[in-house]
Order: sequence, then C-alpha cells, then structure tokens
Amino acid sequence: MENKVLKGKPVADKLTEKIISEIEDIFGNTGKRPTLAMVRVGNREDDLSYQRAASNRCKKCGIDAVVVELDEKCSMDEYIDSLEKLNGDTSVTAILCFRPLPKGLDEDVIKNIISPEKDVDCFSPINLAKLFSGEKDGFVPCTPMGVVEILDFYGIDVEGKNVVVIGRSMVVGKPLSIMLTNRNATVTICHSKSKNLSEICSKSDILISCIGAGRFVKKEFVREGAIVIDVGINFDEDGNMMGDVDYDEVLEQSGGITPVPGGVGAVTTSILASQVLKAFKNTL
Amino acid sequence: MENKVLKGKPVADKLTEKIISEIEDIFGNTGKRPTLAMVRVGNREDDLSYQRAASNRCKKCGIDAVVVELDEKCSMDEYIDSLEKLNGDTSVTAILCFRPLPKGLDEDVIKNIISPEKDVDCFSPINLAKLFSGEKDGFVPCTPMGVVEILDFYGIDVEGKNVVVIGRSMVVGKPLSIMLTNRNATVTICHSKSKNLSEICSKSDILISCIGAGRFVKKEFVREGAIVIDVGINFDEDGNMMGDVDYDEVLEQSGGITPVPGGVGAVTTSILASQVLKAFKNTL
Repeated sequence: MENKVLKGKPVADKLTEKIISEIEDIFGNTGKRPTLAMVRVGNREDDLSYQRAASNRCKKCGIDAVVVELDEKCSMDEYIDSLEKLNGDTSVTAILCFRPLPKGLDEDVIKNIISPEKDVDCFSPINLAKLFSGEKDGFVPCTPMGVVEILDFYGIDVEGKNVVVIGRSMVVGKPLSIMLTNRNATVTICHSKSKNLSEICSKSDILISCIGAGRFVKKEFVREGAIVIDVGINFDEDGNMMGDVDYDEVLEQSGGITPVPGGVGAVTTSILASQVLKAFKNTL
Repeated sequence: MENKVLKGKPVADKLTEKIISEIEDIFGNTGKRPTLAMVRVGNREDDLSYQRAASNRCKKCGIDAVVVELDEKCSMDEYIDSLEKLNGDTSVTAILCFRPLPKGLDEDVIKNIISPEKDVDCFSPINLAKLFSGEKDGFVPCTPMGVVEILDFYGIDVEGKNVVVIGRSMVVGKPLSIMLTNRNATVTICHSKSKNLSEICSKSDILISCIGAGRFVKKEFVREGAIVIDVGINFDEDGNMMGDVDYDEVLEQSGGITPVPGGVGAVTTSILASQVLKAFKNTL
C-alpha cells in the first residue's frame, strides 16, 4: 500500500539537487547568484508561512531571497513604485508578489506592471498567454507545475489519458488543464456547475482535485487503479489539515495518490526555485 | 428535419441589425463612425475572400473598412511600421491582421505590437489572457465567439452540459473550451492524441468539431439528440466544401446541427463587426 503514496518530498529533493548543481556551476563560471524578491503586503499567516518555506528553499539552492514588506494600508502608488524598482534593479532576478492582494490594490493593474522576464509565478498576462499557447519560454504558476513534476517523477505519462480536473481557478485548475492538454492528455474541466460529477470523475485515468473542499472526493469518484492528485489544502474545525480527497476512503482503490500534507504542497517551493533559475539563465 | 438545421444566417442577420441600430444611434449623437483597418500581406485567396466578406459586412453595418496591403516580401520593419501607424491613428477604431503571416514575419513579435484596445480578433496576448481569466473587457477570437452566438441564438444553454471540443488550436479549440468553461459548461478538449475519441464524443450533450478533417465525425460520435456544431471548412478533390462532420450521416440522430457552408462560417464577419462596435464604444 505504501508504494501507492505519491509523496512530494522525493520530487522536491531531486529538483533541489539539480538546481543546486546548476547554480554552483554558474557561480563557478561567473561569480553570480540569482536573487528572488518577494513582495508582501501586511502579515497574512498564509503569506508568512509560504515566505518562510520559499526563503529556506532558496537558501538551500544557493538563491538569495529578499522580502519587500509593505504596510497593509499601502497605496497603489506605493505598491507600483516598489514593483517598478524591482523591475529595474539588475541585482533582482525574479519577483514573487504574494496574492491575493488586499482590497485597495488593483491586481488587474498591477499584473501588467511586473516585468514578464522576472515574473516567476505567472502573474503577468504575457506569461499567462504563453502558457495558453504552449510557448515554453514563459513562466507558469508554481502549483500546477508541481502537479506536472509529480506525474513526471513517478513515471505517469499523461499522453492520450483521460484526465479530469475538478476546479477552474486561475491559479490551478485552468492553467493545469491547458498544460496537460499541451502534453497530449484528454482533459475534462469540472467545477461547481458540473452535473453527474462523480460519474464523470469515475471515468478518468487521472483525477486531479483543486476545489478547496475538505474530503469532497469520495470512493465513487475514483475508478479502480486511477491516479489521484490532491491539490486541496483545507482545515477542519480543530485546525487539522486535509485535502480535497477523502484519503482513507480512496487509498485502497486508487493506483496512486498524493497525500495532504506531504504531496503537491511539498513540491511548490522547489518549482519556484527552478523558475528563478530559469529567469537567471535568461540573463546570462 | 429542417428545423434541426442550425443555420448561421438568421444569427448573423439579428446581430447585424443590432449593430446597425447602435452605430446609427451613435452617429446621430456624435457624427462619428467606426473604422476597421485590415492588414494583408500578399494575395492569399483565403485572405482576399475573407476581406471581401468583412468589407461587405462592415459596409452594411455602417463601419468604414480600409485595407493596408503589403507586399508578400515585406520586412518585419515595414510590417511593424504599418501596424504602429494604425495603432497611433485616432481615425482607426480597430485592426485586423490577416494570419497566418508569411514566414519572414515573426508573429510572436508582432502580436505584442498591435494595440490591445484595437485588436478585434484577439491577436494580442493581453486579450488572450483576458479571455483565459474570463475578463469581459477584452476581445475574443471571432470564430469561437460565433459558436457561442449560435448556441445563444438557438436557445441552447451550456450550463452544466457536457461539451466535447475536438481540436485544440489557438484560433478555435482552446479559446472556445475556455469560453464555454467560463459559461459553466463541463468541457472536454479532445485532439489527435485522444484515445477512444468516438466513445468520448458519444457521451456529450454538445459536440463541437474544429479539427479541419473532412467528414471525420461519423454517426457513432453522436449521441441521439446531441447538438453538433461543425467549425471545419474542408474541400474534397473536386473543390466541394465540406465540414468536419459527415452531415448526411449525422443529421437524423442529432438534436440540431450546423451545416457547412451556411453555419458557423456565416456568423464570423458579424462577430467581427460587433467587436469593432465594442472597440468604438470604448473610445467614446
């Protein structure tokens, strides 16, 4: 049973090892290291914990990480000013803007300001359009890329497979559906308005849930032997973390399943680091 | 049987009528009319015939249409120069670049130059990203929008329906899949690498083909009563036009089917005119 569990850690470890080695090589040749700048507004717990994880991963990889902290009441002008400074700063390789931004800041304006060449989490419409058209020289959002890395690591080929994605958010569901379509999967995008959801899901070879509803995906959603990728991070009343999938119920019949925690979430910061490296290589 | 045939003409006529009336109203109030500039390189028969159809539709709608003709050997600099003039010309409301461009012209560069505010056929990545994220203030490609208009006109609600799209091109399949997902359909995107294609298609409530393979979609692809939208334009050896769907074979069991010619293709120029009107209203 244990070998069915598609853990994120070995995926992250392998990626990290590769990044370390490439960055050391470049440092040996050029004396340069990449720098990631993270822009945080206020002190949301989510942002702080991701910032800690990203900083640690960067450190491990040989990437310098700096944080630009803005007051939660910061104005559009202040935010844009900070972002433009980072765009223009040649010592900054990559920029990550923590989102969602507080209400006073207009994401639809700001996303057009971040330099697409430094935009390692696909905030800019330029990178989004590249993802959509399958151009490989842009940056994709880290979480869906983590799903793709997990599938690759465990040798799960998506070509010609029926993949069902539950969820159509701009951070996971939609980009992931297009990324898997570009990789020759036959993708069905489901969401809250889908009818006969469990029946549609039960026809899939690979089922991916990113809706943010705790233990929503039950036994009847999963065909015997299907791969289940759980992108959800949810908490019960006691603060216990759980995924979108009812893991205990689904484990036995699945052909492989990512746990929560320890699955997709464990890979995200390594993807971030790999995209910082990509941006870095483009500047050399 | 006749009432199963989802013809494009009544859809186009209704749209055209609405556009005429809005443009006349605006002309009455402001003395202004919109202008569409079409940029054509060389003399491809496809481009010329679409240009004629678009010019006629514009004339009917009260839109001025001008054509910028460039030599088929024109350089990047010449093309970009022409495009930038149109961007900057306040008498030009909207720009349509005939595509595909000849080999010497780099679409990936040019698409970033066209002004997103004038880009009525969704060439710019800015409009593509807006389509992807469901923002309604951009421009979508005309052909998939034509499909949506036909469904609306004939009262075919897509919400919660299982829609299968065969084809993943950037001009039809991918944008259409996202547009229908945004409208709450459950969309499956199939393509040349999909397995059990006819079986997947036969489960759909609405089947849309845009692969460009003559009479590819046969009886066994179509569930009894399903709506069939045929976006394909193909020619047999004798030069006869036919769709992707084997119309004669599928007609009886379908719940409604678009003919080729006279279906989706008949709506495209009206969509173009409606997007010119949208761009025009944004300038008032």
